[in-house]
Amino acid sequence: MRTAIYPGSFDPLTNGHLDLVHRAAKLFDRVIVAVARNEGKKAMFTLKERLALVRAAVATIPKVEADSFDGLLVNYVEEQKGLAIIRGLRAVSDFEFEFQLALMNRKLNERVETIFMMPKASYTFLSSRIVKEIAALGGNVDCFVPDHVRLALARKLRK
Amino acid sequence: MRTAIYPGSFDPLTNGHLDLVHRAAKLFDRVIVAVARNEGKKAMFTLKERLALVRAAVATIPKVEADSFDGLLVNYVEEQKGLAIIRGLRAVSDFEFEFQLALMNRKLNERVETIFMMPKASYTFLSSRIVKEIAALGGNVDCFVPDHVRLALARKLRK
Amino acid sequence: MRTAIYPGSFDPLTNGHLDLVHRAAKLFDRVIVAVARNEGKKAMFTLKERLALVRAAVATIPKVEADSFDGLLVNYVEEQKGLAIIRGLRAVSDFEFEFQLALMNRKLNERVETIFMMPKASYTFLSSRIVKEIAALGGNVDCFVPDHVRLALARKLRK
Amino acid sequence: MRTAIYPGSFDPLTNGHLDLVHRAAKLFDRVIVAVARNEGKKAMFTLKERLALVRAAVATIPKVEADSFDGLLVNYVEEQKGLAIIRGLRAVSDFEFEFQLALMNRKLNERVETIFMMPKASYTFLSSRIVKEIAALGGNVDCFVPDHVRLALARKLRK
Amino acid sequence: MRTAIYPGSFDPLTNGHLDLVHRAAKLFDRVIVAVARNEGKKAMFTLKERLALVRAAVATIPKVEADSFDGLLVNYVEEQKGLAIIRGLRAVSDFEFEFQLALMNRKLNERVETIFMMPKASYTFLSSRIVKEIAALGGNVDCFVPDHVRLALARKLRK
Amino acid sequence: MRTAIYPGSFDPLTNGHLDLVHRAAKLFDRVIVAVARNEGKKAMFTLKERLALVRAAVATIPKVEADSFDGLLVNYVEEQKGLAIIRGLRAVSDFEFEFQLALMNRKLNERVETIFMMPKASYTFLSSRIVKEIAALGGNVDCFVPDHVRLALARKLRK
Repeated sequence: MRTAIYPGSFDPLTNGHLDLVHRAAKLFDRVIVAVARNEGKKAMFTLKERLALVRAAVATIPKVEADSFDGLLVNYVEEQKGLAIIRGLRAVSDFEFEFQLALMNRKLNERVETIFMMPKASYTFLSSRIVKEIAALGGNVDCFVPDHVRLALARKLRK
Repeated sequence: MRTAIYPGSFDPLTNGHLDLVHRAAKLFDRVIVAVARNEGKKAMFTLKERLALVRAAVATIPKVEADSFDGLLVNYVEEQKGLAIIRGLRAVSDFEFEFQLALMNRKLNERVETIFMMPKASYTFLSSRIVKEIAALGGNVDCFVPDHVRLALARKLRK
Repeated sequence: MRTAIYPGSFDPLTNGHLDLVHRAAKLFDRVIVAVARNEGKKAMFTLKERLALVRAAVATIPKVEADSFDGLLVNYVEEQKGLAIIRGLRAVSDFEFEFQLALMNRKLNERVETIFMMPKASYTFLSSRIVKEIAALGGNVDCFVPDHVRLALARKLRK
Repeated sequence: MRTAIYPGSFDPLTNGHLDLVHRAAKLFDRVIVAVARNEGKKAMFTLKERLALVRAAVATIPKVEADSFDGLLVNYVEEQKGLAIIRGLRAVSDFEFEFQLALMNRKLNERVETIFMMPKASYTFLSSRIVKEIAALGGNVDCFVPDHVRLALARKLRK
Repeated sequence: MRTAIYPGSFDPLTNGHLDLVHRAAKLFDRVIVAVARNEGKKAMFTLKERLALVRAAVATIPKVEADSFDGLLVNYVEEQKGLAIIRGLRAVSDFEFEFQLALMNRKLNERVETIFMMPKASYTFLSSRIVKEIAALGGNVDCFVPDHVRLALARKLRK
Repeated sequence: MRTAIYPGSFDPLTNGHLDLVHRAAKLFDRVIVAVARNEGKKAMFTLKERLALVRAAVATIPKVEADSFDGLLVNYVEEQKGLAIIRGLRAVSDFEFEFQLALMNRKLNERVETIFMMPKASYTFLSSRIVKEIAALGGNVDCFVPDHVRLALARKLRK
């Protein structure tokens, strides 16, 4: 069984992330969307909330699971017997950072391969950060996130 | 009447910003330099101060006004019956971020066009952030900002 | 009257070019799509053919004209009393080359401004070169070029 | 059975290409190294020679085959019932061109996914073009290409 | 005597930094590794600690000294009668930021030249930030930093 | 004695090249401007002409010599007992190509270091190619090349 890990902060999950999940599911037997704890970064949603939003979104997609992890990504991939890490590429700036990360992960564990995939062209501009900014400014995020994420954003911002 | 909006933090206004204002004024009937509130980012100057510094700088430039705005930029542009958003491009990293922003704004409001202009080549290195760093380290910022901005920086840093 | 020049090889005109023409026409009183002779580059279509394809495409767009030019672009812009050169930006590599060109043109004639606009996101991948390659390999270019350009490509490749 | 296509000019095959083949073979059931005819580009080796060099190199790698193709890549992938196109990424300039190509291929055939993989860090600088230049200048290419490619280069340059 | 200054935060020193120091020492008579105070950035190590780690690492390298500085880099270079500032380049994003910095420094003091050098290819992915992240997640940083830095990281993270 | 080699096609020498020569001369005891034969590329000027134009330009600059070379650059550097190769960086696209070249050269000869320097900001847009294009279109290249190069261009284009 070929397992791939799609790691990220998912703070929160966007339609761009979901698009990538569907594409990855066509290539592997099992895809784990792995929410990173990321203590350093200030997240809008807690790890538990982020995982719940991902879980609700992928529940009905065959071969796809949601999980969270602590510590080094390569250790988690090893535990899950993952063959590959999946990362989305949208722009050149993504690319450079992802490249460095992938080289570092390869250095830490030679067996783990990183593969890069492209989201739909119309999602090129989409990121969790931009979605949060638009929502915070009262903008409509209907076409950027699934419905349950939109509601969670509204609840979070009302506080 | 063709109106263009030149939005930004202007924390504070630099000679690079002013150079772009002059260029834009040649192309449109009315250019609004629109200072964004930007609650998230920690600004050195308050919104009121930033607006005052911009206003003093553009007071004598025909067709150019200063204003501030809250909320989504595209909504502000719509209110002002703006045809275009103007953004300066200095480097590749600017370009990518600006590109994503412009695509997002187009998604939020199809009627608003973003156009990119280049400041004078010798201002390529200039940014509000670098000006603040140099001023904080006791460097001379005479040729990077207008005189009233230089004085405001000195007052702010003396505190 | 504010005139803008949209220069290029247009070998041949694509839907990406046309998209930009429509956007520019909203900002200026007169837009000239100016086909460059470009002796150096090997073109698939002659200057006369390229101009005819552009002319047919813009004939019904108000405020837009087609023309061709020889020599330095800045001289042509000056003759036409153009305020601005319009260039499309799709990617970082575009950006750098365009940037150098714009700086050089500004050096050659300070009065001419270059402004950059973005085509529709879904045209990001589109270029005359890629259209020609696909057509040459027998691929379908229906959604990349106007109908009369598609026919011209077919005729050209049949020879 | 999951098939992936690794297309290219392979003029000639380098150790960087081979490194990528080994990585891809870990992820798929069948990897086809597909040599493109590329009539437009002036190749040093004929299609037949390039295919022979690839074939000799992958003969002993399980799950990997060599082939050549004409026409549109997406059509070839479809014929081979390929799930994915594999492309190597070394640098930002690669990335942009590859990105445009992948978006175009997706436009031409939605079912075909492109995935990007990274060669070994020490092969970052390696390309067929650079290998040919060094060989032409009398430099040693021992650590850049397999032995039979080195000999083929020497024979070709002696003529 | 030709003096070069290699400035940075060195929070903490990595093997990539050390590699660059060795390369610079071949070109100049005296190389000063100059630790910047950087009040703004939150450092993991204090200025005193960072300087001590650098000093221990370069103590036995001929022609190389360690020092720290306050205020504008160009003023420090002037005091030290430095001919050049040395900066490492790993990636495009580095390059743009470094470029702006170098242009600004040249503007502040025409006499000071900035030269860029490349670390070993296998250190491309290496940065102080990534080393700190890996160490914080319990990863092994043996091959990324000198031994005394590894111990300092362990002590710092234990607290 | 510290020798640095500044290699290139110099087809023809521009003021940007000369600016870099002056900067390099401040750092080294001897700088050789080394004109590459470059059989592959179609040059406007012959190797002999290019060398003569360089020689005339550097004749009066202390510590600077002109030369030409065949074969691999690293071999030439070795022969000249050069410590470093000097390359100018203007833009991101430069950077990537130069980076690959420098890594390759380091692979071919570990003793040779490549250092990158920046020309004057106002020469960012300047390249031999752009100068030739402008001259061919009848534009004025007075401020882009030394006087004797301007005359050589005029003579060459008159033919």
